[in-house]
Amino acid sequence: MSRFLSKKYAALSPYTPGEQPQDMKYIKLNTNESPFPPSPKAQKYAAEAASRMQLYPDPECRELTEKIAQLCGLEFENILVTNGSDEILNFAFMAFCDDEHPAIFPDITYGFYPVFAELNNIPYKELPLREDFTIDTSEYYGAGATIFIANPNAPTGIALPLSEIEAIVRNNPDNVVLIDEAYVDFGTESALSLIPKYDNLIVTQTFSKSRSMAGARLGFGAASAALIGDMNTIKYSTNPYNINRMTMAAGLGVLEDEEYTRRNCKTIEKTREYTLRELEKLGFEATASKANFIFVRHNAAGGEELYKTLKSRGILVRHFGKPRLCDYLRITIGAQDEMQALIDTLSDILGGKQ
Amino acid sequence: MSRFLSKKYAALSPYTPGEQPQDMKYIKLNTNESPFPPSPKAQKYAAEAASRMQLYPDPECRELTEKIAQLCGLEFENILVTNGSDEILNFAFMAFCDDEHPAIFPDITYGFYPVFAELNNIPYKELPLREDFTIDTSEYYGAGATIFIANPNAPTGIALPLSEIEAIVRNNPDNVVLIDEAYVDFGTESALSLIPKYDNLIVTQTFSKSRSMAGARLGFGAASAALIGDMNTIKYSTNPYNINRMTMAAGLGVLEDEEYTRRNCKTIEKTREYTLRELEKLGFEATASKANFIFVRHNAAGGEELYKTLKSRGILVRHFGKPRLCDYLRITIGAQDEMQALIDTLSDILGGKQ
Repeated sequence: MSRFLSKKYAALSPYTPGEQPQDMKYIKLNTNESPFPPSPKAQKYAAEAASRMQLYPDPECRELTEKIAQLCGLEFENILVTNGSDEILNFAFMAFCDDEHPAIFPDITYGFYPVFAELNNIPYKELPLREDFTIDTSEYYGAGATIFIANPNAPTGIALPLSEIEAIVRNNPDNVVLIDEAYVDFGTESALSLIPKYDNLIVTQTFSKSRSMAGARLGFGAASAALIGDMNTIKYSTNPYNINRMTMAAGLGVLEDEEYTRRNCKTIEKTREYTLRELEKLGFEATASKANFIFVRHNAAGGEELYKTLKSRGILVRHFGKPRLCDYLRITIGAQDEMQALIDTLSDILGGKQ
Repeated sequence: MSRFLSKKYAALSPYTPGEQPQDMKYIKLNTNESPFPPSPKAQKYAAEAASRMQLYPDPECRELTEKIAQLCGLEFENILVTNGSDEILNFAFMAFCDDEHPAIFPDITYGFYPVFAELNNIPYKELPLREDFTIDTSEYYGAGATIFIANPNAPTGIALPLSEIEAIVRNNPDNVVLIDEAYVDFGTESALSLIPKYDNLIVTQTFSKSRSMAGARLGFGAASAALIGDMNTIKYSTNPYNINRMTMAAGLGVLEDEEYTRRNCKTIEKTREYTLRELEKLGFEATASKANFIFVRHNAAGGEELYKTLKSRGILVRHFGKPRLCDYLRITIGAQDEMQALIDTLSDILGGKQ
């Protein structure tokens, strides 16, 4: 820390992204990327856009925003496109939280929520998940706070049914409820359909997982025109040209190729179920993940030990040090052959422990 | 504004980017873009990177950061790469300004500075430029504030010599001084060489102007390792993957093609001097711009009138409504034929007024 840093950030502890080691080639199952290449249309449009890179991108992102709105059954005014969904999450923390509107979210969820709260000097409360990692949604009724729920949740992958999401939104008419649907495309029902009905609901999604575009940085928020307008005020006071031309073009391309996305999602769901079955045979238990990752623990081997052994054998998974999570591994669903390599390696490692 | 927006943003007035109209094809001389296409290497690398879009980008931006550091004669630890230079400016306002460290900058400068200050609830003071639009640098000595100086300044294009920049930095040892060098490559000496000598100096640059990459969104800050560390704390608490893969690759490409950049800058400088000579013949006076734009007023025609007439004839320039600026036009230096079209059109418009 320099002697110039404002005191307000003296205690700020940044988010730690999943490791991206450069020392050797790993089977990378630690950051929930897609094993599928980007849609050929996304690649083609991005490459074409690169030839017009000397011109600023459209700050309104009109064409892409309209395309996303169409996909969501909403209007241009209901969508704000951002530099990954992290940016729209930050905008929401900024716009809709303050001393009078603290933030509230589960104690086990996307690790960036408390960072956004601390960055913006917002008081926040973390509600403990039940023992089985499920959310007791009734605890969020009349919360008197701005609510952030990842659905499905991370790193558990457990999804809430739409009826329970709606109950949270309905029971907080004077507070914003944000549903973070980063992993919605692998078997969870989206809350997008509720937006015309509730003026306090924001749904965020990302192109990083189901659309094979983590490297392009593209996400969006959907909400009432008034909420989107507020977040646009933040955007135009932060970085009006937040989306570059290549990413904007790639987004258009992948949306013209929805069948490709849907097919990949189905494949990942199948591979997830296969992997879970095989890992259960090896003595693992798992949460009921609806995401493109699984969350598992072994009945005889610790999480940290397994993480380290897998890494030494060239397979990266994610391990969290937090008390209730430290027995577990979060494992991204990669390609079938990557998962087979994981299963075989774990079988080898655990040979003596079953 | 929705009923949910935090009171702290109730009065926030966002930045207004230059217009990007879609209604017809204009000669676009209003947002200081380069008339030259991106370097072929930048295009090629961006297109190649699009095929790996499914993987997160390196959050450290290590390869590009090292390349920029090399160009600046600095180390990896001295550079932070951002989503346009707007992002590093916002990080600096966040990290180094607060109630005890207000912001200070000229009353006529980049219009985003007061927006960043208001966004972050930072008190700020605008020091009037002299009558001839120059900065009285001695007014910034011992400012007791975090100083933001665009060099060359916008929208005047007037540059300060390095000795005067150094005097500001030297005379504020306990405050951060940020020199915004968005337009430095068109004839101004950079302050990058001062960084090893002063721990309170930040220099920001962009790839948008001289490197034909406005559409890619790439900028950076250079400073002591401690200041960069502070801004990295903000980055990793905001958007760790702030630079997408295509932009990162394009940045590497253009830096392997420095000769292309230098040649384009020289051409723009020549075209600028030609344009100024021709406009003077038409009755314009101009500031001594060292940027890729000129700032001119006519002895008989008002700024707003000229802006509107030019727009109706298919030429977009920038006009600012502020009292001391409203007689002026800010005109980007485009290709030679675009500037000839501008000169011919103005000659036609002003036929009766010389």
